[in-house]
Amino acid sequence: MRSLDTLFTPRTVAILGASNDEAKYGNWISVQALRMSRPVYLINRRGEKVLGEPTYRRMADVPEPVDLVVITVPAGGFEEAVDDALAAGATAIVGITSGFAELGDEGRAAQVAVAAKIRAAGAVLLGPNCLGVLDTTSDLYLVSNPLPRGPIGLVSQSGNMALELSKFLADRGLGFSRFASLGNQADLGAADLIRAYAHHPGTEVIAAYCEDFQDGRAFVAACGEAVAAGKPVVLLTVGRSTASTRAARSHTGSLTSDSAVIDAACRAAGVDRVRSPREMADLVTALHRHGSAPARRVAVIADGGGHASTAADIADANGLAVQEFRPELQAALKADLPPSAGVANPVDLAGAGEQDIASFARTIDRVLTDPDIDSVLVTGYFGGYGDYGPDLAAREIATATAMAEHVHRHGKPLVVHTMCSDSLAADELRRHGIGVFRTVDDAARTLGMLADHAEHRPVTKTLPEAAQPVTESGYWHARELLKAGGLTFPDARLATDVVQAAEEIGYPVVLKAMGLLHKSDAGGVAIGLSDRDELCRAHQDMVKRLNVSEYCVERMAGGGVELIVGVRRDAGFGPVLMVGLGGVFTEILKDVTFALAPVTPQEAETMLRSLQAAPLLHGARGREPVDLAAAAEAVAAISEVGAAHPEIAELEVNPLLATPSGCLGLDARIVLVER
Amino acid sequence: MRSLDTLFTPRTVAILGASNDEAKYGNWISVQALRMSRPVYLINRRGEKVLGEPTYRRMADVPEPVDLVVITVPAGGFEEAVDDALAAGATAIVGITSGFAELGDEGRAAQVAVAAKIRAAGAVLLGPNCLGVLDTTSDLYLVSNPLPRGPIGLVSQSGNMALELSKFLADRGLGFSRFASLGNQADLGAADLIRAYAHHPGTEVIAAYCEDFQDGRAFVAACGEAVAAGKPVVLLTVGRSTASTRAARSHTGSLTSDSAVIDAACRAAGVDRVRSPREMADLVTALHRHGSAPARRVAVIADGGGHASTAADIADANGLAVQEFRPELQAALKADLPPSAGVANPVDLAGAGEQDIASFARTIDRVLTDPDIDSVLVTGYFGGYGDYGPDLAAREIATATAMAEHVHRHGKPLVVHTMCSDSLAADELRRHGIGVFRTVDDAARTLGMLADHAEHRPVTKTLPEAAQPVTESGYWHARELLKAGGLTFPDARLATDVVQAAEEIGYPVVLKAMGLLHKSDAGGVAIGLSDRDELCRAHQDMVKRLNVSEYCVERMAGGGVELIVGVRRDAGFGPVLMVGLGGVFTEILKDVTFALAPVTPQEAETMLRSLQAAPLLHGARGREPVDLAAAAEAVAAISEVGAAHPEIAELEVNPLLATPSGCLGLDARIVLVER
Repeated sequence: MRSLDTLFTPRTVAILGASNDEAKYGNWISVQALRMSRPVYLINRRGEKVLGEPTYRRMADVPEPVDLVVITVPAGGFEEAVDDALAAGATAIVGITSGFAELGDEGRAAQVAVAAKIRAAGAVLLGPNCLGVLDTTSDLYLVSNPLPRGPIGLVSQSGNMALELSKFLADRGLGFSRFASLGNQADLGAADLIRAYAHHPGTEVIAAYCEDFQDGRAFVAACGEAVAAGKPVVLLTVGRSTASTRAARSHTGSLTSDSAVIDAACRAAGVDRVRSPREMADLVTALHRHGSAPARRVAVIADGGGHASTAADIADANGLAVQEFRPELQAALKADLPPSAGVANPVDLAGAGEQDIASFARTIDRVLTDPDIDSVLVTGYFGGYGDYGPDLAAREIATATAMAEHVHRHGKPLVVHTMCSDSLAADELRRHGIGVFRTVDDAARTLGMLADHAEHRPVTKTLPEAAQPVTESGYWHARELLKAGGLTFPDARLATDVVQAAEEIGYPVVLKAMGLLHKSDAGGVAIGLSDRDELCRAHQDMVKRLNVSEYCVERMAGGGVELIVGVRRDAGFGPVLMVGLGGVFTEILKDVTFALAPVTPQEAETMLRSLQAAPLLHGARGREPVDLAAAAEAVAAISEVGAAHPEIAELEVNPLLATPSGCLGLDARIVLVER
Repeated sequence: MRSLDTLFTPRTVAILGASNDEAKYGNWISVQALRMSRPVYLINRRGEKVLGEPTYRRMADVPEPVDLVVITVPAGGFEEAVDDALAAGATAIVGITSGFAELGDEGRAAQVAVAAKIRAAGAVLLGPNCLGVLDTTSDLYLVSNPLPRGPIGLVSQSGNMALELSKFLADRGLGFSRFASLGNQADLGAADLIRAYAHHPGTEVIAAYCEDFQDGRAFVAACGEAVAAGKPVVLLTVGRSTASTRAARSHTGSLTSDSAVIDAACRAAGVDRVRSPREMADLVTALHRHGSAPARRVAVIADGGGHASTAADIADANGLAVQEFRPELQAALKADLPPSAGVANPVDLAGAGEQDIASFARTIDRVLTDPDIDSVLVTGYFGGYGDYGPDLAAREIATATAMAEHVHRHGKPLVVHTMCSDSLAADELRRHGIGVFRTVDDAARTLGMLADHAEHRPVTKTLPEAAQPVTESGYWHARELLKAGGLTFPDARLATDVVQAAEEIGYPVVLKAMGLLHKSDAGGVAIGLSDRDELCRAHQDMVKRLNVSEYCVERMAGGGVELIVGVRRDAGFGPVLMVGLGGVFTEILKDVTFALAPVTPQEAETMLRSLQAAPLLHGARGREPVDLAAAAEAVAAISEVGAAHPEIAELEVNPLLATPSGCLGLDARIVLVER
């Protein structure tokens, strides 16, 4: 692990390109830099005073070694500036300068060269085309805007995203411990920074906006390290739509991975993926408050029937479980609330607000005492009762205090939606660390994300050592490779005398013509041949039509559910396993699931169970259930083979026949990486 | 159509139960009522002054006839109060009093009786258990809170929902033309009020929060009337989750319909269904601004790569199409913007904001000129540039003005997300009727809802006249009924001599034992009988096993896609058609779609095309495409039969075989309504 100490805690800093021009980055960053207590040297070509401070014309003039140099000069002068910085002893360089990979291949080559030079000198480069670096725990301010302090470490490939997130966090009383703007990641990438944050005491939650993961496995490992250190990682990325992929390509020259692959990577690493800056702010805030507290089984408490029902629907839509309370709890609530109250979950306090404001706190305490309830969503008018008079206002604030006390005592999350979010009672809740939301949508979604987070089970993904590479991609080679990896296939013979082969194996058999790219489409597969006559007819027909001399004769298998299992090599995340049911399920319904390869049999079983069509495996519609453990073993074996062979671009077993008594590969295919 | 004139424009009003007690509704509503210019008579048992105004002890003491009476007395005195009101000449009664159907069957009986009495007197009742009525266009304020004025007509079964919506609308510069709180709908229901709003000149958009639709077909007709009159109807309802259904039952004693049925009703009526008060406010506001302007094909314009990509993903997730611009448009944008700009859609202005703020307006004008673009989503920092200095601030506001001008000239919707939504430039946009959002999620979702709205094609749903009721539910009766309705079945004979029947029909045949409830499960169906021997064997076997003497012999049909088509009678919305593909598609994947019955063949075809598995109908995986028109005709015929027979609770054809050359019913089933 490379040291990022001088990037975040330099003793001395220089700004190369400091300027008085208020339209220039070299001005904005100098304004912020001069707030710091450490020595800051401003370098200006003309040597004129900048922001009233003396400057140096050249790095070489600076009277002491400089740990960190920020370079804001135009692209043409970047390499020379880097040389000067390294000569001045810099071990961290922040490249604000743009005009590299984001403009195309020439710029990419230039940034690769300069990054190599920096690495060779034992230094690190953030950027180029980045917006700076911030560490509020070490008083480091090398960004264009003042940003709020707090416990969140941010890594971002977009400056405006960082700015938007900072505004949302400030609204929620939070801010940044560190912020690194990634830019083009010519040297330091998201993984390096996340790993550094994982070990940074001032960072409690990590937020990352990233378009290009570069070495995806390193990213997964770094995130896994952070999560294991108790620091959740919340990721906002792009690529869910073709339009965003198009845009990312032109933005930082990024190559985006398929969104499903990123989801698989997040599952492996225990990363929480969000869809927008708002979701990021809400989740980061909730994680800061509640950590990994379970939240799935929610009690919804409303002060009106409409809000009760609507919140229940929205909670359900966000994956929360609004389960009917057990009878004892219902009875206890019924005894305590007005006759028209709803007590089954959702709770409708039914007008108790005006008459008995304390019922909010009592009800929260009561439901949180129940071991079947993980969390509470309050929705409606709470905070508005204070408008009815000073007495009720005081009691409402006292109720807010009591609500917070119950929540902290029980250690279970509470989110509050109120149409009166600007009230004193709402402020009181916030003051005690309760999340208050103006819309029930946001409240429920935040709780839903928290529930997902608590249930994440990250798995360490280690790529197996590369096996002896294969060089042939024919069916028989694929079959042998997978058999060696532990996958079972029906008894088979590679033969020219197909009748003899069939007799050794026993009828019925399958006949496959070898050496064809798509043997099924070409009519090179005949199944269910029940005797010698049928076999000979099929064989003669293939010989005539296909002009193929070598055949594979296999014992016919049937009576199960056909799966399709493949391992594809993603440019960013390496081998990725896909599992689905064969035929229409995969081709038309896209009922497939992905994981980073390899997977354990346990992971494979979870994947199979997650399919929409999984009931077919469990014996739906009168079938016998398949041997799920055997199917999972087979899937895991395929994933191991795919992961151990980086020279294989695609490995596919289709169909993989899952039966009540085992699991058999019926066909296999290899596509080698093009050289 | 009953007149609601005195409900919304009474000449005189009385409040029965006016009170000085600030914790009572009779106080709150009197405060509001006294703001009105029309005569308001306060009735107070003790005859004491209320809010400084004189009161009458009894309705009978009021010196002139009273058009509208608001009753706030406890439930025990409600009926007497109604008698007094009717005696005083009231033609509209607003029942605030609670303690009726929401408490159970006894309360329901009481409200039914009093509603009947009111109707008999030629008057109308709003409520009971309601929160009042408002008409800002006729200066009528009979609710507990002051509410903002505006063009939105609201019907709500929840007072707090109305309050929350009013707050959201006020934020958006809007308010209510009318608001009617439905309460228990003992007399007037949502349909009556929506119909009244449809013809109310001051109402431009109708918002409805409703848990219980009562006569669902009347609701659909009323909404259809409003939509046809150019007044969109936005509906928030409950029942997407079992928890909300549970809650609604206890709230107003409502019986909720299945959420998919409500969706079908909304499609028929052209109603826009939303999931939360926030969505309702956003959509109502957008409809007020943009009406039915198309919005699907959106141009995304950002001032940073991160925002461009993120917005593109979120737009896509909200059903918008972020299509790549045509080459000419890309070339024009490229010529105008910095070299690193993204110009393919999304547009990334790439730092042009600071240097060239006017590029926002120019780019909007350019993309809106393209006939392939319906709408624009701007996302990012716009509004924040003003912070860089007074000159840029002035140019930013001028740019906002120009943006609005372009939008109005082109007549295409623009939504703006900005992290600086409190800026002067954002205010300038709002002042010109542009929707400004603090999160891109809200901006994109609003545009997506607008796009859906513009593409709604409501259909008039008229139930056919009830046909001669059927009294038998056997297979053969179902078959004959459907045949008479135009559905084709394979040639068949009801026979005891099955061999003779088969010879008349021609082999292969299907043999079905008659008189069994689930003949397939009981082993009473044998298919693919190719000759007399096979038929006799099957027949003898069934005779022995099932002890059945009557059989149906049918011509065997095959070679197509099996559909399942059913008509089920919903308590609220009447006959509802379900269409899906047979087997796993319906049972496991729940790939089914619903519509109010009957449907036209055109609607039926749209339903078939909307299925996830629809590619199977179009010839996926090497099949011959089925005759979709014939399948649609068959579905429509089944829907007509189901709709014409209110005595049938369930009518099902499963399978309905869609083949390349036509469509055949292979089995049919009737379940009669229990008497």
